[in-house]
Amino acid sequence: MPETPPRPVPSSATSDAAARGARSVGIIGAGQLARMMLGPAIELGLTTPVLATDPAESAAAVAARVRLGRHDDEQAVRALAADVEVITFDHEHVPTEILGRLEQEGATAVRPGPAALVHAQDKLVMRERLTALGHPCPRWWRISSADDLAAALAETEGRIVVKTPRGGYDAHGVRIVDGADQADDWLAQHGELLAEELVPFTRELSAQVARRPGGEAVAYPVVQSVQKDGVCYEVVAPAPDLDASAQQRIQGLALAIAEDLGVTGMLAVELFETAEGEVLVNELAMRPHNTGHWSMDGAVTGQFEQHLRAVADLPLGSTTPLAPVSVMVNLLGGAAEDLAPGAHAALAANPALKIHLYGKSVRPGRKIGHVTLVGDDPEDLLARAHRAERLIIDGPETPVGT
Amino acid sequence: MPETPPRPVPSSATSDAAARGARSVGIIGAGQLARMMLGPAIELGLTTPVLATDPAESAAAVAARVRLGRHDDEQAVRALAADVEVITFDHEHVPTEILGRLEQEGATAVRPGPAALVHAQDKLVMRERLTALGHPCPRWWRISSADDLAAALAETEGRIVVKTPRGGYDAHGVRIVDGADQADDWLAQHGELLAEELVPFTRELSAQVARRPGGEAVAYPVVQSVQKDGVCYEVVAPAPDLDASAQQRIQGLALAIAEDLGVTGMLAVELFETAEGEVLVNELAMRPHNTGHWSMDGAVTGQFEQHLRAVADLPLGSTTPLAPVSVMVNLLGGAAEDLAPGAHAALAANPALKIHLYGKSVRPGRKIGHVTLVGDDPEDLLARAHRAERLIIDGPETPVGT
Repeated sequence: MPETPPRPVPSSATSDAAARGARSVGIIGAGQLARMMLGPAIELGLTTPVLATDPAESAAAVAARVRLGRHDDEQAVRALAADVEVITFDHEHVPTEILGRLEQEGATAVRPGPAALVHAQDKLVMRERLTALGHPCPRWWRISSADDLAAALAETEGRIVVKTPRGGYDAHGVRIVDGADQADDWLAQHGELLAEELVPFTRELSAQVARRPGGEAVAYPVVQSVQKDGVCYEVVAPAPDLDASAQQRIQGLALAIAEDLGVTGMLAVELFETAEGEVLVNELAMRPHNTGHWSMDGAVTGQFEQHLRAVADLPLGSTTPLAPVSVMVNLLGGAAEDLAPGAHAALAANPALKIHLYGKSVRPGRKIGHVTLVGDDPEDLLARAHRAERLIIDGPETPVGT
Repeated sequence: MPETPPRPVPSSATSDAAARGARSVGIIGAGQLARMMLGPAIELGLTTPVLATDPAESAAAVAARVRLGRHDDEQAVRALAADVEVITFDHEHVPTEILGRLEQEGATAVRPGPAALVHAQDKLVMRERLTALGHPCPRWWRISSADDLAAALAETEGRIVVKTPRGGYDAHGVRIVDGADQADDWLAQHGELLAEELVPFTRELSAQVARRPGGEAVAYPVVQSVQKDGVCYEVVAPAPDLDASAQQRIQGLALAIAEDLGVTGMLAVELFETAEGEVLVNELAMRPHNTGHWSMDGAVTGQFEQHLRAVADLPLGSTTPLAPVSVMVNLLGGAAEDLAPGAHAALAANPALKIHLYGKSVRPGRKIGHVTLVGDDPEDLLARAHRAERLIIDGPETPVGT
């Protein structure tokens, strides 16, 4: 068994022997993250209604309790909240003001709360706060005009990353520009934008932690992630060639951010690693995250169970890996419209393969599932996981390697 | 990583690359076994409606699709079957004749089929068949009258186990008698009974295997189980002090029974181990079984996922353990009516603890959940699991050890 990662002892959360935690957690949004909370919720005995915009959505299709409504419709959010002790999220797009009013009224706990969540909702707020706290960020600029962008471009060899502060996900809301007029449309739409230097990173890492309302927090092993067209594609846990002191330093950074921002639930800190071995914070997500899917099959407590425990204010679970190495490969929509024949072939080819399907219709590049494997050798595990991926998304008739 | 248990290569099931498996599996019965299939079904992308007699039943309360009706009402069973490609079972009490007619009509696959399932439904049929096949059984007698029972008692030092052929579960339908008139009520009710010698066993073992329609089969490690008042209470996987050759021999016995009887899905073979190291078959169950709950957290493929894969005719998953030792302790209803405070305390006491709650009201001795732990030392793991059990079923206010 691998060693237990560092587990900070909380100052305030151990004297709650008489506590019981929440019995009901409403989930706003019905994508695959909500879907993958449902299994652990059943085992923990938690009631988890989901707010879905369509009954065919990933989680809505398999949940026992579904309420139809939009995440930005205050009445719909309130109707879900009225049924539960806690609300949490499948995504970060619920307007901060709605959550602020709900929190102030106090009838339902909002976890993570809006004061924390705004740092995952608004990238300008995030950059400003992390910089003020002294956490490492790329160089960044607040852009209110083409002149601001021209000035930033002058400092960055003529190329820069521009991001919309709100509403982005995966590759959406991110653009690389080399001219001051190339963000005029977004400026007209958003008023302000975030510009960031193009970091010459050697690889991307992700640090995940969970934190309870009282402050108890745990860290997962830091993982290596590979993107494909701006979408998470491949994860190795723990990150190869990251020594124990670097692991601990980066876990400490993620724990500090969770504490500084008052996060409850899972927090993912996506990071750039530079050639000098430094890390810079790229993005924050306050929910289970694609870079943590490996933990469903590779850790004592998977991230979906952990998120529920954290937001229900139950004691957190061990993050100890179940094997020396876990890998995760995303299934991004490809040629096969029916995944079943390829999944069948992939399971036949490797009895150790774990397949997670999201019940979503196939569109090119869309996240429709993922596979995981645990073992000892990351290269071998990745090769096997990618063979399974090709079978599933291309179909079993397509020769592997084409 | 422990070694992979023996994995017999199937003769007929590897050439199905073009197959896809079933997409929908209807579950008859809505107890905790159906409930624990729901999480894996979501991940596999299977649709799994359940037939429940009451919407508050364990699985019905958390399933997305519930049909109300009794398992012995042919119209209710047919209505479920009409919605799915395969039906399977939470328990073995569906009348064999109903299943026989459904199978003959052929519109919906019945897995396990009635010709196999009857051996888990009718203990006389099971004893007769296993004896004919040469599989090791306790000495047994078919009892049609008090005279038959007197004759059997004369051969067994005056004490004998009497069982109703059908309808029993846990301690129900089992009685130890020392007089020929002590089964008159059951004789009047059932016509025929099964009598078995009281086996002087040293411990109970359980061997679980899974088998697909085409014959592919896998075996889990043989486990040691301890009963309490006739109910499964504690399991250690693999069984301590059972050498590799005994493990393989017993796995081979369970695989042979699955093949001989044509089982599809999970098969549990409960066994008596004698002082001479021989094993005798006690009971058969053709579904996920309490002695396999450890595999949810302790094996690459848990028994609930495996059962679904087997009955959906998907390739079977690895049974490799994720740790050298797994333990499972049942939560049997006790003093606490609300399990949440005790569960909270148990999770706080041990971050590695996995709790599975069944959402059932608490009655004394009723199975209301279970806990598991994985690690290296069975004694230590059992002690920790029992501490968690006491906290959960007595409540956190009760001093441990009382």
